[in-house]
Amino acid sequence: MRSPILDYLDRAIEQTAHVAPGAPADYIPELASADPQRIAVAMSTINGTVYASGDADHHFTIQSISKPFVYAQAIEERGLEDVLARIGVEPSGEAFNELSLDPDTGMPRNPMINAGAIATHALLSHGARPADERILELFSQLAEREIEIDEAVAASEAASAHRNLGLAHLLRAAGALDQEPQDAVDGYIRQCAASVTVRDLALMAATLANGGVQPNTGERLFSRTTTRHLLGVMTSCGMYDAAGDWLTTVGIPAKSGVAGGIVGVLPGQLGIAVFSPGLDAHGNSSRGVAMMQHLSEELHLHLMEPARPARSSLRETRTVWIDEHRATLYVLQGDLVLSSVESLVERVLEDPPTTERVVFDMSRVDEVLPVARHVAGQMAKKLIDDGHRIVLIDRDGVTTEVPGAAEPRVERWTREQLDRSAG
Amino acid sequence: MRSPILDYLDRAIEQTAHVAPGAPADYIPELASADPQRIAVAMSTINGTVYASGDADHHFTIQSISKPFVYAQAIEERGLEDVLARIGVEPSGEAFNELSLDPDTGMPRNPMINAGAIATHALLSHGARPADERILELFSQLAEREIEIDEAVAASEAASAHRNLGLAHLLRAAGALDQEPQDAVDGYIRQCAASVTVRDLALMAATLANGGVQPNTGERLFSRTTTRHLLGVMTSCGMYDAAGDWLTTVGIPAKSGVAGGIVGVLPGQLGIAVFSPGLDAHGNSSRGVAMMQHLSEELHLHLMEPARPARSSLRETRTVWIDEHRATLYVLQGDLVLSSVESLVERVLEDPPTTERVVFDMSRVDEVLPVARHVAGQMAKKLIDDGHRIVLIDRDGVTTEVPGAAEPRVERWTREQLDRSAG
Amino acid sequence: MRSPILDYLDRAIEQTAHVAPGAPADYIPELASADPQRIAVAMSTINGTVYASGDADHHFTIQSISKPFVYAQAIEERGLEDVLARIGVEPSGEAFNELSLDPDTGMPRNPMINAGAIATHALLSHGARPADERILELFSQLAEREIEIDEAVAASEAASAHRNLGLAHLLRAAGALDQEPQDAVDGYIRQCAASVTVRDLALMAATLANGGVQPNTGERLFSRTTTRHLLGVMTSCGMYDAAGDWLTTVGIPAKSGVAGGIVGVLPGQLGIAVFSPGLDAHGNSSRGVAMMQHLSEELHLHLMEPARPARSSLRETRTVWIDEHRATLYVLQGDLVLSSVESLVERVLEDPPTTERVVFDMSRVDEVLPVARHVAGQMAKKLIDDGHRIVLIDRDGVTTEVPGAAEPRVERWTREQLDRSAG
Amino acid sequence: MRSPILDYLDRAIEQTAHVAPGAPADYIPELASADPQRIAVAMSTINGTVYASGDADHHFTIQSISKPFVYAQAIEERGLEDVLARIGVEPSGEAFNELSLDPDTGMPRNPMINAGAIATHALLSHGARPADERILELFSQLAEREIEIDEAVAASEAASAHRNLGLAHLLRAAGALDQEPQDAVDGYIRQCAASVTVRDLALMAATLANGGVQPNTGERLFSRTTTRHLLGVMTSCGMYDAAGDWLTTVGIPAKSGVAGGIVGVLPGQLGIAVFSPGLDAHGNSSRGVAMMQHLSEELHLHLMEPARPARSSLRETRTVWIDEHRATLYVLQGDLVLSSVESLVERVLEDPPTTERVVFDMSRVDEVLPVARHVAGQMAKKLIDDGHRIVLIDRDGVTTEVPGAAEPRVERWTREQLDRSAG
Repeated sequence: MRSPILDYLDRAIEQTAHVAPGAPADYIPELASADPQRIAVAMSTINGTVYASGDADHHFTIQSISKPFVYAQAIEERGLEDVLARIGVEPSGEAFNELSLDPDTGMPRNPMINAGAIATHALLSHGARPADERILELFSQLAEREIEIDEAVAASEAASAHRNLGLAHLLRAAGALDQEPQDAVDGYIRQCAASVTVRDLALMAATLANGGVQPNTGERLFSRTTTRHLLGVMTSCGMYDAAGDWLTTVGIPAKSGVAGGIVGVLPGQLGIAVFSPGLDAHGNSSRGVAMMQHLSEELHLHLMEPARPARSSLRETRTVWIDEHRATLYVLQGDLVLSSVESLVERVLEDPPTTERVVFDMSRVDEVLPVARHVAGQMAKKLIDDGHRIVLIDRDGVTTEVPGAAEPRVERWTREQLDRSAG
Repeated sequence: MRSPILDYLDRAIEQTAHVAPGAPADYIPELASADPQRIAVAMSTINGTVYASGDADHHFTIQSISKPFVYAQAIEERGLEDVLARIGVEPSGEAFNELSLDPDTGMPRNPMINAGAIATHALLSHGARPADERILELFSQLAEREIEIDEAVAASEAASAHRNLGLAHLLRAAGALDQEPQDAVDGYIRQCAASVTVRDLALMAATLANGGVQPNTGERLFSRTTTRHLLGVMTSCGMYDAAGDWLTTVGIPAKSGVAGGIVGVLPGQLGIAVFSPGLDAHGNSSRGVAMMQHLSEELHLHLMEPARPARSSLRETRTVWIDEHRATLYVLQGDLVLSSVESLVERVLEDPPTTERVVFDMSRVDEVLPVARHVAGQMAKKLIDDGHRIVLIDRDGVTTEVPGAAEPRVERWTREQLDRSAG
Repeated sequence: MRSPILDYLDRAIEQTAHVAPGAPADYIPELASADPQRIAVAMSTINGTVYASGDADHHFTIQSISKPFVYAQAIEERGLEDVLARIGVEPSGEAFNELSLDPDTGMPRNPMINAGAIATHALLSHGARPADERILELFSQLAEREIEIDEAVAASEAASAHRNLGLAHLLRAAGALDQEPQDAVDGYIRQCAASVTVRDLALMAATLANGGVQPNTGERLFSRTTTRHLLGVMTSCGMYDAAGDWLTTVGIPAKSGVAGGIVGVLPGQLGIAVFSPGLDAHGNSSRGVAMMQHLSEELHLHLMEPARPARSSLRETRTVWIDEHRATLYVLQGDLVLSSVESLVERVLEDPPTTERVVFDMSRVDEVLPVARHVAGQMAKKLIDDGHRIVLIDRDGVTTEVPGAAEPRVERWTREQLDRSAG
Repeated sequence: MRSPILDYLDRAIEQTAHVAPGAPADYIPELASADPQRIAVAMSTINGTVYASGDADHHFTIQSISKPFVYAQAIEERGLEDVLARIGVEPSGEAFNELSLDPDTGMPRNPMINAGAIATHALLSHGARPADERILELFSQLAEREIEIDEAVAASEAASAHRNLGLAHLLRAAGALDQEPQDAVDGYIRQCAASVTVRDLALMAATLANGGVQPNTGERLFSRTTTRHLLGVMTSCGMYDAAGDWLTTVGIPAKSGVAGGIVGVLPGQLGIAVFSPGLDAHGNSSRGVAMMQHLSEELHLHLMEPARPARSSLRETRTVWIDEHRATLYVLQGDLVLSSVESLVERVLEDPPTTERVVFDMSRVDEVLPVARHVAGQMAKKLIDDGHRIVLIDRDGVTTEVPGAAEPRVERWTREQLDRSAG
């Protein structure tokens, strides 16, 4: 049985397809040749389950999306104080092509702009092991698979690296870089050329949503404090200019890359990744931004939403006797939002009910987001398709929408009916 | 029995007392004469329970803390689109005395700086009723008591209002103000002269934390969308310059006033208010900022913390028989953080156990913040002082710290022991 | 005999007529209704002779062109130090609608932007006599006639003075204005509504070119030091943004007004005034700017031209005997530029030669600008038309171009020929 | 006989000695080791006569003073339009360590800041001959001697060139540099390491004052238009920030170098050069600035002074008979300012009078600056010391001050007395 969350993501991709994709970055041929029609989305729960749709296995280079992860790693290795002495945390309030060096000190304003990211990269260049090797290893731990460099992109970037070299020399002149500028830029270019998919990025983002612990391996990669600090920086500095606009309308700490990727992090809830190579005037993926807006709006994935529990909506599962037949009873609770209904759906899919009749007790449910209603309805339909009969204990009768055709096999009961029948 | 949360707040005030208070604002005598030693703190849960300590009943003028609430009201009355056409949402990235008008349009950059707040105030000046009357009514609904104007402060501000008049005339010239500049400034000054306590402000902030619904009256004052939008704006524009620093270190959407107040909002969790009249170089209350930092750090009240449920930690309460005596069993669950342990404590205080033996089953608890451990320990001690005996079902033996003297009356059992004893 | 300089100016107007005039300022009806086809130009030598062409007697309001004169007056009355303590001298480097207040002090950056001009105006508001009365008197002394206020324009400006009132209140708040904001703005508006012609402005500018002494009355209105300081400020701050572009291409300290006037000052040489009500994107008269460029280029009126003497090119005049007839000998010297040839022409026109034969000894002339050659040729033609015969002692034969038809009555001799003939 | 102008410069050096010298630039040892007590001044008339005092033969590196000359050369070779397409002419309005690249285009704001100077240097890198060779040749032509590179300084600068390399890479990235960044910076460093004296610089500046013609060789190095344009740029962009302050108080187009030199240009009058290695907070020579201010004030060398003729004050020299003895008559005219009295003094020194009695007819003199009075008095004294007797035809008796001791050998006559005596 296919997860209805995947159906939801399929639909989200369809609904974003009308957005003009823009043109891919054209400063190197390797990016310019990207197919602007490609689009992909992935979401990972903080339990590490990844849902993806579209060109989800297409590889592209991580580019600036590498910045937050490498910044967190630099804080882990060098300590926050040392890092803050080199790189600020204030929004540059300016376009993505701004230098954003502090006019008084020459230091970079934040780690999300290139100058700051080069200085960050260089902080990992200590000890015997090259920084880019350590960074690849980090990415691999985050994505739970071996991440590799796209050497063609790296070579092409290196050939047109004048802007980054300019920044690196300025940083060196300002005392904000210990490494040789050429070496720092070479390493930074390799960092940016790491080849990833939206699945990888969603899982990497989920580690941040999960407070620094990789959900699947359980490995703590960043401390809780580092993660929290990083997400604060992503919130104010992640999406270039118009930070206020992004924060009010999308409300998801995020970072985009020039190859077309965007990651978003909902602390305690989800990691999100989208991809589409065409860029808008700000240098962000056009369809990627549209997709983030769509998901934020429809899934209420907004930092300023009163926090909803990421825990399962499933309070308990047990077998009950109804009219002398065994039935599987799922007792739901709390708010049904995407992240909570997701774990219910996953549980049902993994361990399908063995009885014909399946009862969903929703009398303890507080609020149901439209998306959750939709996903739950899809799940009910799938169960019906598999031969089950559904009983809904539905406080007000509007909690779920089971697609019309399936309705004959759905009964709506009150809690009292259940209690009477189940004895 | 005094709530241990109050004890905690008492301690927080003690721990902030070492911070030099700074000098009160001195541009009008009414503010300059404030006693810089005063300090107060209050927290309101999203259920509307307010805990306060220090000079919690001292009245002071709300000043700029009025801005977010009036902004939300303007969105409610005029619609978001209309408001955004007048006032931006981008951080000014500049000092509190900056004009922050958009150089191209002359429009204010955001509603948290004076120009934006005057324009916001004027948006409520439609229809027959004066804007300041409507605003007073709003404040009264938010604070659940009749809020009044401090007429002495209002009169004094009006006498030295050149800067605000300057802004208002510029706004009028730019087409961003329909009202007469003098009228808009007069009304705005009255809005700022509303006289409040930290209790009032905490409850007002709790309405924002609660998605726009006043927790006690249950009245929806702002829509969910308006509230979310407002909190985004407070996050990026609330604390003047150094927005990035505030977001990473404190991480609480906040707004300060020149009379020494600061409010903070943790969506889905808490409204916080602090007060101390001495100001720092940024124009924020020195001790107020220190208190906010202290609370954020100790209570993990940071927007970027993985969201913790605001719901009760109390899964169920029932009476069980242990060794043939009745005992009261409290089954706890989830993470024990301040906001969750608070509802437990409140429940116990309101409806104290009637049995000698009280069992806390903590075997389902995931994580316990130090502050929650402390509060829970204090509660246990109070129960012992009242003659109870405590049984802790404590998975790993470190969940609670009951103050030493009380230890003889505390037993630590495993879950299995309970099951055996309780039958 | 009409001065060939007037012919030259007529031609300059013709040559500027192709420039699209732009639209007049439209913020008050009194300016909006101006006829954009009007154009006028005037030049005054530092001897006070004014040449004008086009709508030279059309009255328009002085507007911002009042700023430099009032600034000089403020320095005279209050001392430079006092004035510099209130108003800076640095270019704002920004558009004409910028506030240009120093972010640290709130003081205006320079006296050529509105904030600075209002502060300047207010500095004259001391003692019993209103500032605007004193200013009218100053303008009258500069222009050598009774200057009056255009009351219709003043009234209309007063009705839409929000921007200036905004600035005045901000200045007052910053301690940069002692007067009541409304009074300062009312006075400033009257200052700007002084009704002038290009003739007036050219003479006013000539006073500055002449080091502060009104050329005709001989009255010293501003000290040499004040004048020098003012011209420095006009150079860097006079023409809004693109100061560098103006300085390199036009190179004339200048000030424009929104009614369409522009004045320029060539120290030691000329005062210039142009007028055309249509404005360009910078708020300067479109045709006015074109005319200034034209004059600068053609007349080499550029601050960075090696200084040319403003003194007469006429070394001596005497009567000589040539072939037993009396002849009038004009011995010329130095560079023939417009301002020097002008005094020659004027002399000849005022005191025409009484002999048939007129000798111009140009053997001591160093360099001849094209415009001077043209003007001198025109003068020769006029003499011929009046019945004279011309002898040119012309070192290299190209110094003058006498219009073809007149050629038969022109002889070209060498110095030696003259010496032989004159005995 | 030593020129009294030299005495004047000696005195100027004495009068500047009280200014704290500041510390020499310390970013390379070669500059840091400079003796901060050194001070030198030189002035060159537009006739090419150089007067110098202090450490006038001390060699130092030209540094940023090379910028205006190379800029003029670039305009000559590439045309103004091409150069303006690469490098702006607007003041950066910012500190000397600002990047000053246009945020929209990445192009340098003007040629006087490093980014602009590197781009300018690279414009000369075309054809077979290296730019730095051509530039050395240009400097040699300007200074009328073989200028060489200080190889130690060049090597040391090259070792710490990160900031310039940063700028060059950024320029390359912005399309504002065709050359390889490393090559452009290497060449630019050599340009800056040209070793000069204040004599050299004064003569180089005099070429600019003279409209582009080297005064001694008569060679036109820059066209009149190029020179004029360059001087406009120096006026608005030459002395880093506080352009308005420099323009009003000193009023001399100027450029300073980090080794302690400053050049100034009075169009049509003088080239000036000062040197002292200690720098102020702006990076300009402390004593150099003080000296420029002193000279501007005392010699009325201000761009905004009504232009004074640079030509000789000497109207004619002839031998007359007075009381039956031959006497040498010098007829003076016009304003006696430094540049005009200088040519008189030079003439008298070169071709001393052969008669005992020397008559100075000053009845045609208009105005006499104090400095000219002083210099003329000194010259009279020297003539007296050489055995001459002086007759002064002095309209108002205050024109000259002959030092007291010499007075017995000075007679003061009226013009009529002379006419009577001389017959």
